[in-house]
Order: sequence, then structure tokens, then C-alpha cells
Amino acid sequence: MGHSSYTGALDIGGTKMLACIIDDSGELVVRRRIETQALRGAADVIARAASLLRELAQEIGIATERLTGIGCSVPGPLDSARGVVIFSPNLAWRDVPLAAALSKELGVSIKIEDDARCAALGEARRGGARSAQNAVYLTISTGIGAGIIVNGRIYRGSHGCAGEVGHITLDAGGPPCACGNMGCFESLASGSAIAARARQAVVHGDESLLARFRDEPALLTSEHVIDAAHRGDGVASRILETAALYLGIGLAAVATAYDPEVIVLGGGVIHPDGMLLRRARQVFSARVIAPLGSLVRIVPAELGDESALWGAAALITGDTALDARQVIDV
Amino acid sequence: MGHSSYTGALDIGGTKMLACIIDDSGELVVRRRIETQALRGAADVIARAASLLRELAQEIGIATERLTGIGCSVPGPLDSARGVVIFSPNLAWRDVPLAAALSKELGVSIKIEDDARCAALGEARRGGARSAQNAVYLTISTGIGAGIIVNGRIYRGSHGCAGEVGHITLDAGGPPCACGNMGCFESLASGSAIAARARQAVVHGDESLLARFRDEPALLTSEHVIDAAHRGDGVASRILETAALYLGIGLAAVATAYDPEVIVLGGGVIHPDGMLLRRARQVFSARVIAPLGSLVRIVPAELGDESALWGAAALITGDTALDARQVIDV
Repeated sequence: MGHSSYTGALDIGGTKMLACIIDDSGELVVRRRIETQALRGAADVIARAASLLRELAQEIGIATERLTGIGCSVPGPLDSARGVVIFSPNLAWRDVPLAAALSKELGVSIKIEDDARCAALGEARRGGARSAQNAVYLTISTGIGAGIIVNGRIYRGSHGCAGEVGHITLDAGGPPCACGNMGCFESLASGSAIAARARQAVVHGDESLLARFRDEPALLTSEHVIDAAHRGDGVASRILETAALYLGIGLAAVATAYDPEVIVLGGGVIHPDGMLLRRARQVFSARVIAPLGSLVRIVPAELGDESALWGAAALITGDTALDARQVIDV
Repeated sequence: MGHSSYTGALDIGGTKMLACIIDDSGELVVRRRIETQALRGAADVIARAASLLRELAQEIGIATERLTGIGCSVPGPLDSARGVVIFSPNLAWRDVPLAAALSKELGVSIKIEDDARCAALGEARRGGARSAQNAVYLTISTGIGAGIIVNGRIYRGSHGCAGEVGHITLDAGGPPCACGNMGCFESLASGSAIAARARQAVVHGDESLLARFRDEPALLTSEHVIDAAHRGDGVASRILETAALYLGIGLAAVATAYDPEVIVLGGGVIHPDGMLLRRARQVFSARVIAPLGSLVRIVPAELGDESALWGAAALITGDTALDARQVIDV
């Protein structure tokens, strides 16, 4: 069977860019990942994204104009209908007409969507939320964000803010959050929250494997804390316990609000076999309203750093890619 | 224009029952409200509901079999697809096949739905959430419950639990909740929470208008606290301030999760011009993630104790009643 159409996908992140082209059966044809730290500003990033897509199209012997479209994942907030990145703290972009700029370069229609929503869509189409009607993708990294799938489709809410669950209050008197509020889910269970607690302990002089950061606490990251906890460090373990308590409470809030089949966890702080996820699941089961503790699955993302890339492709192919692929597989 | 079809609606509550018949332009034809305290058990309530509908149908000269259907609001949890009330603490019912029983009595198809979801649908069709695509109805009474409207329709979630937001944790170390968890929205901002705090203050011997309940604190209700606060009582005002803090934080959580156009507040604890709602709105605006503070309207229910009745009717008429009515109005 010859392929008559191809679809492009792009995932623009803070330090890297992924691109791919899939065929009309949903199979990957060509993929590339590049580092983007050297790029400066939106114009540079857009030019590099365009040249990357041109290279991939050339490799399979077509012009980018032949693509059915290109879906693009980018950190928000953004206006997907107008194709404009309103303000992206991760990229330091403001009011960038990304869809129009890429479309002009590549001669094909472009759809853009927030990275957490793309990741949710990718995991729903072919990852940990496959076949779920209602699902949540929750990313636990520097911050906490979510993409919501309702009835198989991305749910944006009435003002594009649905899923900002990192800013639900879980502890009214809790620590300050970057958003200006206090006790937010993000200020209690994110990578930044874990690192902040560890820095306090180190500066306070607690005995720990982390004490080596006493002179330069700013270098201490959540990854160091997770590593030290897995090596049995008491201070690091207590910090992870606290983060797991609030991660479990936050998961319970998310499950109670949306009642999904599955919550898929992504982001650098989540290690599939780690203590944080194990303890958070226990808190979740104990805290969430019955019967959801046994009904809502909590699973790590299956597509690794490609969740958002596959979701970006699905912005163009819609619900049909997976169906088509299932037909081909049979 | 003659009316060729009529639809019935029923709202079964803990102490009262409302019923009505509307015509195919969505206009009310006949309505009745009765007290039900004297009734004992599901069979009695169902028999009375059936006779009430028969009386209303007779008044307009038709048989109940002529109705296009009857929508029925009832406190859950319930299985709307099977028409069975699984367990209703308010009614003390368990596994009651309500739809089948009423259908057998009245010779017409019956749809049942949870009372908070019916109220949400009623307010969405012709109350405070008119014309909203996404809306939340939040009832603040003995407990806290919600009905969620997504894309103009009731959102139940994958296991019928969506909207159990009364059991989102707002304070990890907060007071115990009836659900077995602690620090739930309901344990901090419901009528029961207000009454419980007031009883503590009275037993503690605080000087207050509420001190008259010292010998019988069980008689003290949230209504007494609201009344005393509006008369300037310091203890009562502080208790309402605390409830307003958590009501505002809970409203922010609900707005952040669903990003609706509007949150409609119902339930006996909400007085449209009262201090609780005024202070809760202030907390909401200060706490919710920007820009939702200025975008999500917080309004009292417009249909009074008939929100759920109108929603029950809409279970049968679907999205068309309002449209038809608009056509007639023009």
C-alpha cells in the first residue's frame, strides 16, 4: 500500500526541539532531536524549526507543502485558535505568532497547542491513557501542569485555563508559590519544592549526603534529593516523604475533579519505580473519596520525552491516526 | 399554536417533593410542592410521587402515558444509565430501582439523575448559567456537592464521581470529614462545618449571642451563626470569616480545575447578599490563578429551590427546550 499523505509534528521545548513526520497509517517515518540552547529568541527558534522540518521532508523526498499539516507543541500560555504564544516563561517569548510564522516558511497549515495538552493527547492516542475516554496527564517537573482529556478530546475550559491544577491550594497556610498565592500543589510537590526544602535543610546544617552543597545550595536540584533518598539518606527521604504526601493529595484532588480512567504522570521528577511515586500512590488511595482509590489508575508516561510530539501530530490527524494504525496492524 | 406534547419533572428531596409538567415550548403548565416527612421508605415515596404526577396530568386533562417522559432528580449516588439509586444517605435508600418502579406506575419512560447535576442543568438551561458552555453548580448546605456542565452537557466522569469536589483536600491537617479523610472542602466550609465551629465556641464558653445554646449545642445550626454574624456578633463573624476563607479557596480550586464561565452557588448556607458570599468572592479573586479572578463569574442560583426540577425536565427535553422557548419569545 502506497502512502499518499504525510503529517509533520514539532515539539519546541526550553532546551531541545523534536520533530518527526508520520505517514497516513500513523507510523513514524523520520524523526530528529536537536539541542537549542545556542538559539537566541523566537525568530532564531522558528527559523531552526522550519529548517529542521525541511530537512526531514527532503529525506523522504517530498516538499513541506505536501504535508497535510504540522502540529506544534510549545510551552504556554498560548491562544491555539489564533496560533499565538501569548507568554511562555520557559522560552521567554511574548506574543509570538508562531503558527503564522511557521506556515509562511513551510507553506502548510500549522496548529499549535500547549505542551501539557499535547502530552495528554499523545498519551491518550498511543501511550498510558490509550483507549481512555477521560484522562489527565500531569507533569511534575520544575512546575506542575496538566492536560485534560474529556470524551477523547482536549478540554481547554472557557478561557484556556483548564488544567492549571498546579495552582490549586492544598494547604491554606503553605509555602509561597511563583504565582503569588501560597500552599499551591506546585509549591508543595514540584521539583522546585523538593529542591527548596533540601536547600533549607543544607543551609540549616542538617547531616546528610546533601551537605556537600552547603557552600553552593543553588546547585542542589530535586534529582540530587531523589538520588540521596534512594541511597538511604534520612534528610532526603523525609523531604521526598513530604513531597509524596502532597503529590498524593494533589492526585486525589485531580481524580475527584475529573473522575478519569487514568492519570498519566510525566516530567523529570517522576521515576517509574521510585519512592516518590510509590508513596504518592499510597497517599492517593488513602485520601481519595471511595471508590476512586481502586478505580483511577496512576501510571507513568509511556512515551518518554515524545508524549508531546505524538500529541502534536494528533492535532492534525485527529482521532483517526490510531484507528488507521489498528487497521494496518490487523 | 396548540401543544402536542408535555414533559413531566420530579424532584425528590429529603423532606419535600416538587413536581411539574411543562409544554413543548418549555413553559410551565402546572406545578406542585408537597412535604414528605410523613412518608416512610422508598415504596411510600415512589407511590406518592406517582400519584402526584397523576394528579397534575389529570388537571391538564391527559393521561401520564401521554407525557414524552419524566425526568427525576434524586439525591445520589445513583446509576443514571440503569435508573437505580445506589445509596442515598439523605433518603436512607439503598439499591432502589427508581426509574423502573415509576415507569411501571405511570406507563412512561423515566430518567433519573443526581440532584446536584440536575440543579446544574437547570441553572444552565434557564438560570444563572444560561448560555454558558462550561459551568459548575456548587451547593453549600449540610455538605458540599457539585454538578459540572462541559460543552453544554452534564459531565459525570468515567465512574460517575466527577464533581465530588466537597472532598478535595484544602488543608492537609484540617478537621476530620464524614468521608473519613481530613481537611476536605466540606469539612471546612459547609453548613455542618460552620455549626461545628460554633458549637465548639459555645461549649468553650466564648461570649456571644450564640451562648444561649450552651446547654443544648446540638440545636445550634449554621443559620443561627449567619444570623448572629449579621447582627454584629464577634464570635459568629470570625466563624463565618473562616468559612469564607475556605469557600473562596474551594471556589478557586473549582475554577482552576474546570475553567467555567460561571460558578452558580446554591444551598441553604448561601444568602445572595450575605457576608459569607461577599468575603468568599474576595478570597476567590485574591487566590485564584490570573486571569480567572476577573473572568469566572460567581453568582447565586436564580431558580431558588426549583433548579433541580428544571434540570430534571431538561433530562427529557435535552438542549431543545430553551431553543424552542427562545423561538416562541421572538
